[in-house]
Amino acid sequence: MELWFTEKHTKTRGLSFQISKTLHHEESPFQVMDIVETPDFGRVMLLDDVVMVTDVDEFVYHEMITHVPLFSHPNPKHVLIIGGGDGGTLREVCKHHLVQTATLIEIDSMVIEGAKAYFPRIAEGFKSPKAQVIVDDGIKFLKECKTKYDVILIDSTDPVGPATGLFRSEFYQDCFNALNDDGILTVQSESPYIPDLVPIIRDMNQNLSAIFPIVRMYLASIQTYQAGLWSFQIASKRYDPIMDFQESVYLNDGLQLQYYNKELHRACFALPEFVLNIIK
Amino acid sequence: MELWFTEKHTKTRGLSFQISKTLHHEESPFQVMDIVETPDFGRVMLLDDVVMVTDVDEFVYHEMITHVPLFSHPNPKHVLIIGGGDGGTLREVCKHHLVQTATLIEIDSMVIEGAKAYFPRIAEGFKSPKAQVIVDDGIKFLKECKTKYDVILIDSTDPVGPATGLFRSEFYQDCFNALNDDGILTVQSESPYIPDLVPIIRDMNQNLSAIFPIVRMYLASIQTYQAGLWSFQIASKRYDPIMDFQESVYLNDGLQLQYYNKELHRACFALPEFVLNIIK
Repeated sequence: MELWFTEKHTKTRGLSFQISKTLHHEESPFQVMDIVETPDFGRVMLLDDVVMVTDVDEFVYHEMITHVPLFSHPNPKHVLIIGGGDGGTLREVCKHHLVQTATLIEIDSMVIEGAKAYFPRIAEGFKSPKAQVIVDDGIKFLKECKTKYDVILIDSTDPVGPATGLFRSEFYQDCFNALNDDGILTVQSESPYIPDLVPIIRDMNQNLSAIFPIVRMYLASIQTYQAGLWSFQIASKRYDPIMDFQESVYLNDGLQLQYYNKELHRACFALPEFVLNIIK
Repeated sequence: MELWFTEKHTKTRGLSFQISKTLHHEESPFQVMDIVETPDFGRVMLLDDVVMVTDVDEFVYHEMITHVPLFSHPNPKHVLIIGGGDGGTLREVCKHHLVQTATLIEIDSMVIEGAKAYFPRIAEGFKSPKAQVIVDDGIKFLKECKTKYDVILIDSTDPVGPATGLFRSEFYQDCFNALNDDGILTVQSESPYIPDLVPIIRDMNQNLSAIFPIVRMYLASIQTYQAGLWSFQIASKRYDPIMDFQESVYLNDGLQLQYYNKELHRACFALPEFVLNIIK
Protein backbone atom coordinates (compact mmCIF):
# COMPACT_ATOMS: atom_id res chain seq x y z
CA MET A 1 0.00 0.00 0.00
CA GLU A 2 1.33 3.44 -0.97
CA LEU A 3 0.91 5.87 1.92
CA TRP A 4 0.85 9.59 1.11
CA PHE A 5 0.52 12.58 3.40
CA THR A 6 -0.44 16.10 2.40
CA GLU A 7 0.42 19.01 4.65
CA LYS A 8 -2.28 21.48 3.80
CA HIS A 9 -0.89 25.01 3.53
CA THR A 10 -4.40 26.31 2.94
CA LYS A 11 -7.62 24.31 2.76
CA THR A 12 -7.01 23.85 -0.94
CA ARG A 13 -3.27 23.37 -1.45
CA GLY A 14 -0.40 21.52 0.16
CA LEU A 15 2.85 19.62 -0.02
CA SER A 16 2.32 15.89 -0.65
CA PHE A 17 4.86 13.23 0.03
CA GLN A 18 5.02 9.49 0.24
CA ILE A 19 5.68 7.85 3.59
CA SER A 20 7.69 4.67 3.58
CA LYS A 21 7.31 3.99 7.29
CA THR A 22 5.61 5.48 10.31
CA LEU A 23 8.07 5.43 13.18
CA HIS A 24 6.40 7.15 16.10
CA HIS A 25 3.09 8.68 17.13
CA GLU A 26 2.61 10.43 20.44
CA GLU A 27 0.38 12.99 22.06
CA SER A 28 1.40 15.45 24.75
CA PRO A 29 -0.75 18.00 26.58
CA PHE A 30 0.42 20.48 23.92
CA GLN A 31 0.38 18.76 20.56
CA VAL A 32 0.49 15.58 18.50
CA MET A 33 3.87 14.41 17.21
CA ASP A 34 4.40 12.05 14.27
CA ILE A 35 7.77 10.86 13.08
CA VAL A 36 7.87 9.19 9.67
CA GLU A 37 10.38 7.92 7.14
CA THR A 38 10.06 9.31 3.60
CA PRO A 39 11.83 8.63 0.29
CA ASP A 40 12.44 12.34 -0.40
CA PHE A 41 13.13 13.99 2.93
CA GLY A 42 14.54 11.19 5.07
CA ARG A 43 12.96 11.28 8.50
CA VAL A 44 10.31 13.94 9.07
CA MET A 45 8.89 15.20 12.37
CA LEU A 46 5.38 16.63 12.21
CA LEU A 47 3.65 18.50 15.01
CA ASP A 48 -0.12 18.74 14.63
CA ASP A 49 0.28 17.62 11.00
CA VAL A 50 2.77 20.41 10.16
CA VAL A 51 6.32 19.56 9.05
CA MET A 52 8.77 20.73 11.72
CA VAL A 53 12.06 19.21 10.62
CA THR A 54 13.28 16.86 7.93
CA ASP A 55 16.68 15.21 7.66
CA VAL A 56 17.19 16.57 4.18
CA ASP A 57 16.58 20.29 4.57
CA GLU A 58 16.62 21.12 8.30
CA PHE A 59 19.97 22.84 7.73
CA VAL A 60 18.34 25.82 6.00
CA TYR A 61 16.05 26.87 8.84
CA HIS A 62 18.53 26.13 11.60
CA GLU A 63 21.46 27.87 9.95
CA MET A 64 19.42 30.91 8.96
CA ILE A 65 17.65 31.50 12.27
CA THR A 66 21.02 31.23 14.06
CA HIS A 67 23.91 32.58 12.05
CA VAL A 68 22.29 35.74 10.71
CA PRO A 69 21.75 37.20 14.21
CA LEU A 70 24.86 35.64 15.78
CA PHE A 71 27.18 37.02 13.11
CA SER A 72 25.48 40.41 13.52
CA HIS A 73 26.63 40.63 17.13
CA PRO A 74 30.34 41.18 17.93
CA ASN A 75 30.25 39.14 21.12
CA PRO A 76 27.24 36.82 21.52
CA LYS A 77 28.30 35.17 24.79
CA HIS A 78 24.92 34.19 26.17
CA VAL A 79 22.17 32.96 23.87
CA LEU A 80 18.58 32.03 24.73
CA ILE A 81 16.44 29.83 22.49
CA ILE A 82 12.68 29.72 23.05
CA GLY A 83 11.18 26.60 21.48
CA GLY A 84 13.46 24.68 19.15
CA GLY A 85 12.94 21.40 20.98
CA ASP A 86 14.42 19.40 18.11
CA GLY A 87 17.84 20.78 18.99
CA GLY A 88 18.84 22.00 15.51
CA THR A 89 19.07 25.67 16.46
CA LEU A 90 20.95 24.72 19.64
CA ARG A 91 23.44 22.75 17.54
CA GLU A 92 24.09 25.77 15.32
CA VAL A 93 24.39 28.21 18.25
CA CYS A 94 26.94 25.97 19.99
CA LYS A 95 29.14 26.02 16.88
CA HIS A 96 30.03 29.67 17.55
CA HIS A 97 33.34 30.04 19.35
CA LEU A 98 32.22 33.23 21.10
CA VAL A 99 29.12 31.59 22.59
CA GLN A 100 29.66 30.53 26.20
CA THR A 101 26.13 29.45 27.17
CA ALA A 102 23.16 28.39 25.09
CA THR A 103 19.92 28.03 27.08
CA LEU A 104 16.96 26.31 25.46
CA ILE A 105 13.44 26.67 26.90
CA GLU A 106 11.07 24.14 25.35
CA ILE A 107 7.53 23.72 26.66
CA ASP A 108 7.13 20.15 25.43
CA SER A 109 9.62 17.47 26.50
CA MET A 110 8.03 15.08 24.00
CA VAL A 111 9.68 17.02 21.15
CA ILE A 112 13.10 16.85 22.81
CA GLU A 113 12.81 13.13 23.41
CA GLY A 114 11.50 12.52 19.89
CA ALA A 115 14.44 14.38 18.39
CA LYS A 116 16.97 12.56 20.57
CA ALA A 117 15.49 9.19 19.62
CA TYR A 118 15.00 9.69 15.89
CA PHE A 119 17.10 12.67 14.73
CA PRO A 120 20.53 12.18 16.31
CA ARG A 121 22.25 14.51 13.83
CA ILE A 122 19.81 17.33 14.61
CA ALA A 123 19.77 16.69 18.36
CA GLU A 124 23.55 16.72 18.74
CA GLY A 125 23.43 20.23 20.19
CA PHE A 126 22.00 18.74 23.39
CA LYS A 127 25.41 17.14 24.02
CA SER A 128 27.33 20.40 23.92
CA PRO A 129 28.85 21.53 27.24
CA LYS A 130 27.52 25.02 26.42
CA ALA A 131 23.92 23.77 26.33
CA GLN A 132 21.41 24.07 29.15
CA VAL A 133 17.93 22.69 28.52
CA ILE A 134 14.90 23.73 30.57
CA VAL A 135 11.45 22.27 30.00
CA ASP A 136 9.20 25.21 30.73
CA ASP A 137 6.81 27.73 29.24
CA GLY A 138 8.97 30.28 27.38
CA ILE A 139 6.48 33.08 28.03
CA LYS A 140 6.53 32.50 31.78
CA PHE A 141 10.31 32.01 31.78
CA LEU A 142 10.94 35.35 30.08
CA LYS A 143 8.48 37.23 32.26
CA GLU A 144 10.32 36.05 35.38
CA CYS A 145 13.79 36.16 33.82
CA LYS A 146 16.54 37.86 35.84
CA THR A 147 19.45 36.95 33.52
CA LYS A 148 20.38 39.09 30.52
CA TYR A 149 21.17 37.58 27.13
CA ASP A 150 23.05 38.82 24.09
CA VAL A 151 20.87 37.04 21.58
CA ILE A 152 17.38 35.53 21.88
CA LEU A 153 16.04 33.24 19.14
CA ILE A 154 12.31 32.44 18.94
CA ASP A 155 12.20 29.06 17.23
CA SER A 156 8.48 28.52 17.53
CA THR A 157 5.76 26.54 15.80
CA ASP A 158 3.05 28.43 13.87
CA PRO A 159 0.88 30.98 15.70
CA VAL A 160 -1.81 28.47 16.61
CA GLY A 161 -1.82 26.15 19.60
CA PRO A 162 1.01 26.39 22.16
CA ALA A 163 2.98 29.06 20.27
CA THR A 164 0.23 31.71 20.02
CA GLY A 165 1.61 33.83 22.86
CA LEU A 166 5.04 33.91 21.21
CA PHE A 167 3.66 36.21 18.52
CA ARG A 168 2.31 38.87 20.91
CA SER A 169 3.67 42.34 21.57
CA GLU A 170 3.84 41.72 25.33
CA PHE A 171 6.16 38.78 24.73
CA TYR A 172 8.44 40.87 22.51
CA GLN A 173 8.65 43.44 25.31
CA ASP A 174 9.72 40.69 27.72
CA CYS A 175 12.38 39.65 25.20
CA PHE A 176 13.57 43.26 24.99
CA ASN A 177 13.84 43.40 28.79
CA ALA A 178 15.83 40.17 28.92
CA LEU A 179 18.38 41.40 26.38
CA ASN A 180 21.56 43.31 27.14
CA ASP A 181 21.78 46.90 25.88
CA ASP A 182 23.22 45.69 22.58
CA GLY A 183 21.09 42.56 22.35
CA ILE A 184 19.45 41.03 19.29
CA LEU A 185 16.16 39.14 19.01
CA THR A 186 15.28 36.94 16.03
CA VAL A 187 11.89 35.36 15.41
CA GLN A 188 10.73 32.99 12.73
CA SER A 189 7.92 34.78 10.95
CA GLU A 190 6.09 32.44 8.58
CA SER A 191 5.67 32.42 4.79
CA PRO A 192 4.86 35.63 2.92
CA TYR A 193 3.31 33.64 0.05
CA ILE A 194 0.39 32.37 2.16
CA PRO A 195 -2.37 35.02 2.18
CA ASP A 196 -3.60 34.16 5.70
CA LEU A 197 -0.08 34.64 7.09
CA VAL A 198 0.46 38.07 5.56
CA PRO A 199 -1.38 40.01 8.31
CA ILE A 200 0.56 38.03 10.94
CA ILE A 201 3.87 38.99 9.34
CA ARG A 202 2.76 42.63 9.15
CA ASP A 203 1.68 42.65 12.82
CA MET A 204 4.93 41.06 13.95
CA ASN A 205 6.92 43.64 12.07
CA GLN A 206 4.88 46.52 13.47
CA ASN A 207 4.95 45.17 17.03
CA LEU A 208 8.71 44.62 16.93
CA SER A 209 9.26 48.05 15.39
CA ALA A 210 7.33 49.66 18.26
CA ILE A 211 9.80 48.17 20.74
CA PHE A 212 13.18 47.84 18.98
CA PRO A 213 15.03 50.64 17.17
CA ILE A 214 16.25 48.35 14.36
CA VAL A 215 13.98 45.74 12.74
CA ARG A 216 14.79 43.92 9.51
CA MET A 217 13.14 41.02 7.76
CA TYR A 218 15.05 38.32 5.90
CA LEU A 219 14.19 35.29 3.81
CA ALA A 220 15.30 31.74 3.20
CA SER A 221 14.16 29.10 0.75
CA ILE A 222 12.85 26.11 2.72
CA GLN A 223 11.32 23.53 0.41
CA THR A 224 9.35 21.63 3.07
CA TYR A 225 7.77 24.70 4.66
CA GLN A 226 4.72 26.51 3.36
CA ALA A 227 5.15 27.74 -0.22
CA GLY A 228 8.90 27.08 0.01
CA LEU A 229 9.75 30.58 1.22
CA TRP A 230 10.25 31.47 4.87
CA SER A 231 10.71 34.78 6.65
CA PHE A 232 12.50 35.81 9.82
CA GLN A 233 12.56 39.12 11.63
CA ILE A 234 15.60 40.43 13.40
CA ALA A 235 15.01 43.09 16.06
CA SER A 236 18.09 44.75 17.46
CA LYS A 237 18.91 47.31 20.14
CA ARG A 238 22.16 48.57 18.63
CA TYR A 239 23.68 46.54 15.80
CA ASP A 240 22.41 46.68 12.26
CA PRO A 241 22.59 43.14 10.85
CA ILE A 242 23.80 44.39 7.47
CA MET A 243 26.16 47.24 8.46
CA ASP A 244 27.50 45.40 11.52
CA PHE A 245 27.98 41.98 9.92
CA GLN A 246 30.95 40.45 11.75
CA GLU A 247 32.71 39.23 8.65
CA SER A 248 36.08 38.66 10.31
CA VAL A 249 34.48 36.58 13.08
CA TYR A 250 32.64 34.56 10.43
CA LEU A 251 35.82 33.98 8.42
CA ASN A 252 37.74 33.11 11.57
CA ASP A 253 35.10 30.63 12.77
CA GLY A 254 35.35 28.66 9.51
CA LEU A 255 32.04 26.86 10.06
CA GLN A 256 31.18 24.10 7.59
CA LEU A 257 27.66 25.07 6.56
CA GLN A 258 25.27 24.07 3.81
CA TYR A 259 23.20 27.23 3.26
CA TYR A 260 24.51 30.33 5.08
CA ASN A 261 27.59 32.17 3.87
CA LYS A 262 28.84 35.75 3.95
CA GLU A 263 27.24 36.77 0.66
CA LEU A 264 23.88 35.43 1.85
CA HIS A 265 24.20 37.22 5.18
CA ARG A 266 23.68 40.47 3.34
CA ALA A 267 21.63 39.19 0.40
CA CYS A 268 18.91 37.56 2.52
CA PHE A 269 17.74 41.04 3.54
CA ALA A 270 16.99 42.01 -0.08
CA LEU A 271 13.23 41.53 -0.19
CA PRO A 272 11.04 41.09 -3.28
CA GLU A 273 8.61 43.95 -3.92
CA PHE A 274 5.57 41.94 -2.77
CA VAL A 275 7.29 41.27 0.57
CA LEU A 276 8.34 44.90 1.00
CA ASN A 277 4.70 45.81 0.44
CA ILE A 278 3.68 43.65 3.41
CA ILE A 279 5.84 45.52 5.89
CA LYS A 280 5.88 49.06 4.54
CA MET B 1 -16.93 16.40 -5.82
CA GLU B 2 -13.58 17.82 -4.70
CA LEU B 3 -11.04 17.61 -7.51
CA TRP B 4 -7.35 17.68 -6.57
CA PHE B 5 -4.27 17.58 -8.77
CA THR B 6 -0.72 16.73 -7.67
CA GLU B 7 2.21 17.80 -9.78
CA LYS B 8 4.78 15.18 -8.95
CA HIS B 9 8.21 16.71 -8.49
CA THR B 10 9.66 13.27 -7.98
CA LYS B 11 7.82 9.95 -7.98
CA THR B 12 7.19 10.40 -4.28
CA ARG B 13 6.53 14.11 -3.66
CA GLY B 14 4.61 16.93 -5.24
CA LEU B 15 2.55 20.09 -5.03
CA SER B 16 -1.16 19.36 -4.54
CA PHE B 17 -3.94 21.81 -5.22
CA GLN B 18 -7.66 21.79 -5.56
CA ILE B 19 -9.20 22.51 -8.94
CA SER B 20 -12.49 24.36 -8.98
CA LYS B 21 -13.02 24.10 -12.72
CA THR B 22 -11.34 22.56 -15.75
CA LEU B 23 -11.41 25.13 -18.53
CA HIS B 24 -9.51 23.64 -21.45
CA HIS B 25 -7.79 20.44 -22.51
CA GLU B 26 -5.92 20.16 -25.80
CA GLU B 27 -3.20 18.10 -27.37
CA SER B 28 -0.69 19.33 -29.96
CA PRO B 29 2.01 17.35 -31.77
CA PHE B 30 4.35 18.53 -28.98
CA GLN B 31 2.51 18.30 -25.68
CA VAL B 32 -0.74 18.20 -23.72
CA MET B 33 -2.12 21.48 -22.38
CA ASP B 34 -4.59 21.80 -19.50
CA ILE B 35 -5.99 25.07 -18.24
CA VAL B 36 -7.77 24.97 -14.89
CA GLU B 37 -9.23 27.32 -12.33
CA THR B 38 -7.95 26.94 -8.75
CA PRO B 39 -8.82 28.56 -5.41
CA ASP B 40 -5.18 29.30 -4.56
CA PHE B 41 -3.45 30.18 -7.81
CA GLY B 42 -6.24 31.54 -10.00
CA ARG B 43 -5.96 30.09 -13.48
CA VAL B 44 -3.17 27.59 -14.04
CA MET B 45 -1.72 26.36 -17.33
CA LEU B 46 -0.14 22.91 -17.25
CA LEU B 47 1.90 21.37 -20.04
CA ASP B 48 2.32 17.60 -19.78
CA ASP B 49 1.05 17.83 -16.17
CA VAL B 50 3.69 20.40 -15.15
CA VAL B 51 2.63 23.87 -13.95
CA MET B 52 3.78 26.46 -16.49
CA VAL B 53 2.06 29.65 -15.35
CA THR B 54 -0.43 30.65 -12.69
CA ASP B 55 -2.25 33.96 -12.37
CA VAL B 56 -1.02 34.41 -8.82
CA ASP B 57 2.73 33.98 -9.11
CA GLU B 58 3.69 34.20 -12.78
CA PHE B 59 5.25 37.58 -12.04
CA VAL B 60 8.23 36.03 -10.27
CA TYR B 61 9.49 33.90 -13.13
CA HIS B 62 8.72 36.44 -15.85
CA GLU B 63 10.27 39.38 -14.03
CA MET B 64 13.36 37.45 -13.00
CA ILE B 65 14.15 35.83 -16.37
CA THR B 66 13.78 39.22 -18.03
CA HIS B 67 14.93 42.12 -15.88
CA VAL B 68 18.11 40.60 -14.48
CA PRO B 69 19.72 40.25 -17.95
CA LEU B 70 18.08 43.33 -19.46
CA PHE B 71 19.25 45.62 -16.68
CA SER B 72 22.73 44.08 -17.00
CA HIS B 73 23.02 45.37 -20.59
CA PRO B 74 23.43 49.12 -21.23
CA ASN B 75 21.50 49.06 -24.48
CA PRO B 76 19.34 45.97 -25.06
CA LYS B 77 17.76 47.06 -28.36
CA HIS B 78 16.99 43.70 -29.88
CA VAL B 79 15.81 40.82 -27.74
CA LEU B 80 15.07 37.23 -28.76
CA ILE B 81 12.90 34.90 -26.66
CA ILE B 82 12.98 31.16 -27.36
CA GLY B 83 9.86 29.48 -25.96
CA GLY B 84 7.78 31.60 -23.62
CA GLY B 85 4.59 30.98 -25.58
CA ASP B 86 2.42 32.26 -22.73
CA GLY B 87 3.68 35.78 -23.46
CA GLY B 88 4.71 36.71 -19.91
CA THR B 89 8.40 37.12 -20.70
CA LEU B 90 7.49 39.07 -23.85
CA ARG B 91 5.34 41.40 -21.74
CA GLU B 92 8.24 42.11 -19.37
CA VAL B 93 10.76 42.61 -22.20
CA CYS B 94 8.46 45.12 -23.94
CA LYS B 95 8.30 47.22 -20.76
CA HIS B 96 11.94 48.29 -21.27
CA HIS B 97 12.22 51.67 -22.94
CA LEU B 98 15.50 50.77 -24.61
CA VAL B 99 14.07 47.65 -26.26
CA GLN B 100 13.12 48.26 -29.89
CA THR B 101 12.23 44.73 -31.02
CA ALA B 102 11.23 41.63 -29.08
CA THR B 103 11.09 38.47 -31.19
CA LEU B 104 9.47 35.37 -29.73
CA ILE B 105 10.03 31.94 -31.29
CA GLU B 106 7.56 29.40 -29.92
CA ILE B 107 7.35 25.89 -31.35
CA ASP B 108 3.76 25.29 -30.28
CA SER B 109 1.00 27.70 -31.36
CA MET B 110 -1.40 25.90 -29.00
CA VAL B 111 0.37 27.54 -26.02
CA ILE B 112 0.10 31.01 -27.55
CA GLU B 113 -3.59 30.58 -28.31
CA GLY B 114 -4.25 29.12 -24.86
CA ALA B 115 -2.59 32.08 -23.18
CA LYS B 116 -4.45 34.60 -25.35
CA ALA B 117 -7.78 32.95 -24.57
CA TYR B 118 -7.38 32.32 -20.83
CA PHE B 119 -4.53 34.52 -19.51
CA PRO B 120 -5.13 37.97 -21.00
CA ARG B 121 -2.98 39.72 -18.38
CA ILE B 122 -0.02 37.44 -19.12
CA ALA B 123 -0.53 37.50 -22.88
CA GLU B 124 -0.67 41.27 -23.16
CA GLY B 125 2.92 41.39 -24.47
CA PHE B 126 1.59 40.00 -27.76
CA LYS B 127 -0.15 43.34 -28.35
CA SER B 128 3.03 45.41 -28.07
CA PRO B 129 4.20 47.10 -31.28
CA LYS B 130 7.72 45.90 -30.38
CA ALA B 131 6.65 42.24 -30.46
CA GLN B 132 7.14 39.85 -33.34
CA VAL B 133 5.91 36.28 -32.89
CA ILE B 134 7.15 33.39 -35.00
CA VAL B 135 5.83 29.86 -34.61
CA ASP B 136 8.91 27.78 -35.32
CA ASP B 137 11.47 25.44 -33.81
CA GLY B 138 13.85 27.64 -31.80
CA ILE B 139 16.79 25.32 -32.41
CA LYS B 140 16.34 25.46 -36.18
CA PHE B 141 15.68 29.22 -36.07
CA LEU B 142 18.92 29.93 -34.22
CA LYS B 143 20.99 27.64 -36.43
CA GLU B 144 19.85 29.53 -39.53
CA CYS B 145 19.72 32.94 -37.83
CA LYS B 146 21.37 35.84 -39.70
CA THR B 147 20.25 38.61 -37.32
CA LYS B 148 22.25 39.55 -34.20
CA TYR B 149 20.59 40.15 -30.85
CA ASP B 150 21.63 41.98 -27.70
CA VAL B 151 19.86 39.61 -25.34
CA ILE B 152 18.53 36.07 -25.81
CA LEU B 153 16.20 34.54 -23.21
CA ILE B 154 15.58 30.78 -23.16
CA ASP B 155 12.14 30.45 -21.59
CA SER B 156 11.76 26.71 -22.03
CA THR B 157 9.87 23.85 -20.47
CA ASP B 158 11.81 21.17 -18.57
CA PRO B 159 14.52 19.17 -20.37
CA VAL B 160 12.16 16.40 -21.44
CA GLY B 161 9.96 16.39 -24.54
CA PRO B 162 10.16 19.30 -26.99
CA ALA B 163 12.67 21.33 -24.94
CA THR B 164 15.42 18.70 -24.68
CA GLY B 165 17.58 20.30 -27.38
CA LEU B 166 17.46 23.67 -25.62
CA PHE B 167 19.71 22.28 -22.90
CA ARG B 168 22.52 21.15 -25.25
CA SER B 169 25.94 22.69 -25.74
CA GLU B 170 25.44 22.96 -29.51
CA PHE B 171 22.37 25.12 -28.92
CA TYR B 172 24.29 27.41 -26.55
CA GLN B 173 26.95 27.85 -29.26
CA ASP B 174 24.23 28.88 -31.72
CA CYS B 175 22.98 31.39 -29.14
CA PHE B 176 26.52 32.72 -28.77
CA ASN B 177 26.78 33.14 -32.54
CA ALA B 178 23.46 34.99 -32.73
CA LEU B 179 24.49 37.51 -30.05
CA ASN B 180 26.28 40.80 -30.64
CA ASP B 181 29.81 41.13 -29.25
CA ASP B 182 28.42 42.39 -25.96
CA GLY B 183 25.38 40.11 -25.92
CA ILE B 184 23.83 38.31 -22.96
CA LEU B 185 22.09 34.92 -22.86
CA THR B 186 19.83 33.85 -20.00
CA VAL B 187 18.39 30.37 -19.56
CA GLN B 188 15.99 29.00 -17.01
CA SER B 189 17.83 26.21 -15.26
CA GLU B 190 15.50 24.22 -13.02
CA SER B 191 15.36 23.65 -9.26
CA PRO B 192 18.55 22.93 -7.30
CA TYR B 193 16.52 21.17 -4.57
CA ILE B 194 15.45 18.28 -6.82
CA PRO B 195 18.23 15.65 -6.84
CA ASP B 196 17.55 14.50 -10.42
CA LEU B 197 17.93 18.08 -11.67
CA VAL B 198 21.27 18.72 -10.00
CA PRO B 199 23.38 17.07 -12.74
CA ILE B 200 21.41 19.00 -15.38
CA ILE B 201 22.16 22.30 -13.63
CA ARG B 202 25.83 21.36 -13.36
CA ASP B 203 26.03 20.39 -17.05
CA MET B 204 24.33 23.61 -18.13
CA ASN B 205 26.77 25.66 -16.09
CA GLN B 206 29.79 23.79 -17.45
CA ASN B 207 28.55 23.93 -21.04
CA LEU B 208 27.83 27.65 -20.84
CA SER B 209 31.19 28.30 -19.16
CA ALA B 210 32.98 26.54 -22.03
CA ILE B 211 31.47 29.04 -24.49
CA PHE B 212 30.92 32.34 -22.62
CA PRO B 213 33.56 34.26 -20.64
CA ILE B 214 31.11 35.27 -17.87
CA VAL B 215 28.56 32.82 -16.43
CA ARG B 216 26.60 33.44 -13.26
CA MET B 217 23.72 31.60 -11.66
CA TYR B 218 20.87 33.31 -9.85
CA LEU B 219 17.81 32.24 -7.89
CA ALA B 220 14.18 33.17 -7.38
CA SER B 221 11.52 31.83 -5.05
CA ILE B 222 8.66 30.44 -7.17
CA GLN B 223 6.08 28.72 -5.01
CA THR B 224 4.35 26.76 -7.81
CA TYR B 225 7.56 25.39 -9.34
CA GLN B 226 9.46 22.37 -8.08
CA ALA B 227 10.55 22.74 -4.43
CA GLY B 228 9.71 26.45 -4.56
CA LEU B 229 13.21 27.50 -5.63
CA TRP B 230 14.21 28.16 -9.22
CA SER B 231 17.54 28.85 -10.85
CA PHE B 232 18.62 30.79 -13.93
CA GLN B 233 21.98 31.07 -15.61
CA ILE B 234 23.21 34.23 -17.24
CA ALA B 235 25.98 33.86 -19.81
CA SER B 236 27.55 37.05 -21.05
CA LYS B 237 30.16 38.08 -23.60
CA ARG B 238 31.21 41.32 -21.94
CA TYR B 239 29.01 42.65 -19.13
CA ASP B 240 29.09 41.26 -15.64
CA PRO B 241 25.50 41.24 -14.35
CA ILE B 242 26.57 42.39 -10.88
CA MET B 243 29.32 44.89 -11.70
CA ASP B 244 27.54 46.27 -14.76
CA PHE B 245 24.05 46.52 -13.28
CA GLN B 246 22.46 49.48 -15.05
CA GLU B 247 21.05 51.07 -11.94
CA SER B 248 20.38 54.47 -13.51
CA VAL B 249 18.47 52.88 -16.41
CA TYR B 250 16.44 50.86 -13.89
CA LEU B 251 15.65 53.92 -11.80
CA ASN B 252 14.79 55.93 -14.91
CA ASP B 253 12.49 53.24 -16.28
CA GLY B 254 10.40 53.27 -13.10
CA LEU B 255 8.77 49.91 -13.81
CA GLN B 256 5.98 48.85 -11.48
CA LEU B 257 7.08 45.34 -10.54
CA GLN B 258 6.08 42.80 -7.91
CA TYR B 259 9.31 40.86 -7.33
CA TYR B 260 12.41 42.36 -9.00
CA ASN B 261 14.07 45.49 -7.61
CA LYS B 262 17.59 46.89 -7.52
CA GLU B 263 18.57 45.23 -4.25
CA LEU B 264 17.42 41.86 -5.59
CA HIS B 265 19.31 42.37 -8.86
CA ARG B 266 22.52 41.94 -6.91
CA ALA B 267 21.24 39.72 -4.08
CA CYS B 268 19.80 37.01 -6.36
CA PHE B 269 23.37 36.03 -7.29
CA ALA B 270 24.24 35.20 -3.67
CA LEU B 271 23.95 31.41 -3.70
CA PRO B 272 23.50 29.10 -0.70
CA GLU B 273 26.44 26.78 -0.06
CA PHE B 274 24.62 23.70 -1.36
CA VAL B 275 23.97 25.50 -4.67
CA LEU B 276 27.57 26.73 -4.93
CA ASN B 277 28.64 23.13 -4.47
CA ILE B 278 26.62 22.11 -7.54
CA ILE B 279 28.48 24.43 -9.88
CA LYS B 280 31.96 24.57 -8.40
